Amino acid sequence: MTGTAPAPFTADDYRARMARAARTAADAGLAALLVAPGPDMVWLTGYAPPAETERLTLLVLVPGRDPVLVVPALEAPDAAKAVGAPGLALRGWTDGQDPYAATASLLDAGGRFGISDNAWAMHLLALQKELPGTSYASLTDALPMLRAVKDAAELELLAAAGAAADATFEEIRKVPFAGRRESEVAADIAHLLRRFGHSQVDFTIVASGPNGANPHHEVGDRVIERGDMVVLDFGGLKNGYGSDTSRTVHVGEPTDEERRVHDLVRAAQEAGFSAVRPGAACQEVDRAARAVIEDAGYGDYFIHRTGHGIGVTTHEPPYMIEGEEQPLVPGMCFSVEPGVYLPGRFGVRIEDIVTVTEDGGRRLNDTTREMVIVD
Amino acid sequence: MTGTAPAPFTADDYRARMARAARTAADAGLAALLVAPGPDMVWLTGYAPPAETERLTLLVLVPGRDPVLVVPALEAPDAAKAVGAPGLALRGWTDGQDPYAATASLLDAGGRFGISDNAWAMHLLALQKELPGTSYASLTDALPMLRAVKDAAELELLAAAGAAADATFEEIRKVPFAGRRESEVAADIAHLLRRFGHSQVDFTIVASGPNGANPHHEVGDRVIERGDMVVLDFGGLKNGYGSDTSRTVHVGEPTDEERRVHDLVRAAQEAGFSAVRPGAACQEVDRAARAVIEDAGYGDYFIHRTGHGIGVTTHEPPYMIEGEEQPLVPGMCFSVEPGVYLPGRFGVRIEDIVTVTEDGGRRLNDTTREMVIVD
Repeated sequence: MTGTAPAPFTADDYRARMARAARTAADAGLAALLVAPGPDMVWLTGYAPPAETERLTLLVLVPGRDPVLVVPALEAPDAAKAVGAPGLALRGWTDGQDPYAATASLLDAGGRFGISDNAWAMHLLALQKELPGTSYASLTDALPMLRAVKDAAELELLAAAGAAADATFEEIRKVPFAGRRESEVAADIAHLLRRFGHSQVDFTIVASGPNGANPHHEVGDRVIERGDMVVLDFGGLKNGYGSDTSRTVHVGEPTDEERRVHDLVRAAQEAGFSAVRPGAACQEVDRAARAVIEDAGYGDYFIHRTGHGIGVTTHEPPYMIEGEEQPLVPGMCFSVEPGVYLPGRFGVRIEDIVTVTEDGGRRLNDTTREMVIVD
Repeated sequence: MTGTAPAPFTADDYRARMARAARTAADAGLAALLVAPGPDMVWLTGYAPPAETERLTLLVLVPGRDPVLVVPALEAPDAAKAVGAPGLALRGWTDGQDPYAATASLLDAGGRFGISDNAWAMHLLALQKELPGTSYASLTDALPMLRAVKDAAELELLAAAGAAADATFEEIRKVPFAGRRESEVAADIAHLLRRFGHSQVDFTIVASGPNGANPHHEVGDRVIERGDMVVLDFGGLKNGYGSDTSRTVHVGEPTDEERRVHDLVRAAQEAGFSAVRPGAACQEVDRAARAVIEDAGYGDYFIHRTGHGIGVTTHEPPYMIEGEEQPLVPGMCFSVEPGVYLPGRFGVRIEDIVTVTEDGGRRLNDTTREMVIVD
């Protein structure tokens, strides 16, 4: 199951997105977009197949022609119920027929195509074999900003997801930490995210004490102790749009060093946020946050990029990373999440989702970034 | 999250699987296997990354060399905890480094490689660009039977998953159907599957009345009525191995026609099962089941293949479909699930998981295939 919830858009919204995507493709010299089940398809059509299987489902967007959804005949009735279906021609195929030949018949045999990042290799290989004169680029390479600029309705949904994440933090800070397993606190977080309207929980990181020094530690059986720093990082989808926030709490009174590192990360997060403005390159956000940590001598302990985009997924372009020169545009939404990770000891990460406004940035999370002391 | 639960295997089990896979690849003329997160990776290493993202994680199996897992450095500590990790060299890469160049350095620049079906197109395209002299085949094309023959421990796990699905059916037949929504019965099924040990529920199809005539109808808000046929088709993973069973129940007394169609599908399922024996081609199972339905004049209403393999996924090779000449081998496990779908009226499907034994087949589901009357 993709678990992606339907978003409150109309058939016309999806029609407009498909038309815009096709125009953007043409401008980039692409003869078509080949869109796989997943976030691209949900965003363009509202359709999420019940499961991703070896049976080909592919949205074919050729500039100047009507969109076609190649779909297993068995699944066509469900596809026809998608909100965006009125803007699509459904091309059903049954077991035993060749869906790649059917797809090829829609395409320019010598074209260059954009294809969803997460399209299955088996489908791409079959198309390459069927149409040997064609070439392909992943959508992240060819049209990385296809879904990056959110419209007003999308911003409202992202803000609602952020508010639900904030509400989750306000509740989770009240629960007991000491003496409970990370996995128990994580279950509480998942429950709260659902209670505040999430249909899908993507991650509930609870990384206590030394586990916090592994930025991708998810959750384990470690019993949280008094004196632990605990990194909380959680998110998922609410009404089809993502949340992703991190706060680092402390069980009981912190040491001076713990407080100093937390303050440092908070200052770095503030600096990253302050760098957000239209026209700034993505890497400037990374540089601004990283400079604060490097200047304090902790540069070797900030071992990941500063942020990633968010929308119908919790992880997408644009990326706030050195080398990304994409200028920020109003409506882009992404995380700003610097961290410091001291191996074997503890970690701190503070993360908000930020949207680019006409003259700066606006946070979609807004719980305190001061260190919260929990029990 | 992949949601794939760890299975009770040892590091040596995974080492042996990786060695066997590399030998099989060499025999098939492949210079390496490129294994993406998902079922192939879980089966070969026990490792399931917390999320599938644009960051490359790839198991590289080169015949005659030690297996290497290319993995984001952030996730390396989690990968190192996988049961199969002792048999792997971890090659971590950090944001800003080029994981495709790192992968290419492990590979023969002119080789032909097998790649997981579900590897992301963006990763395949990047490898094709990095190593222009290479060629690729999906594992389903190149080594379709790589995971198809289950060993004794795997069979035991599949049998346990089947028993849990049977227990779910025995409970669900007792709940009220009439007057409740399909979605409510589906929620009951999901709850039961988890109660009987499933860590992941993949599908809970409840297709009542006319919805039953769409073989891929999942579940909806339709209120089930007295007189409805209801197709139930559910499964997921228990201890990392799959269940998938279908029974068609009737709310109150069926009509003669409903009983006749149900008997027909039951006979077809029996015929498909009886065709299972070592050396028979997969398509013979399909033909045997289909012949029964065609002979009764319902051939146009059996609109899908007869079955699919099952293992660490609920949907994989071998496929019981016309044209599939792969001979059955003891240890293969797959569904036998003929159906008849009368548009706008009702559908019937009966499905068991079957394993090939030394002299025939053995069902891993064994609740009654007679029509069950529910309230």
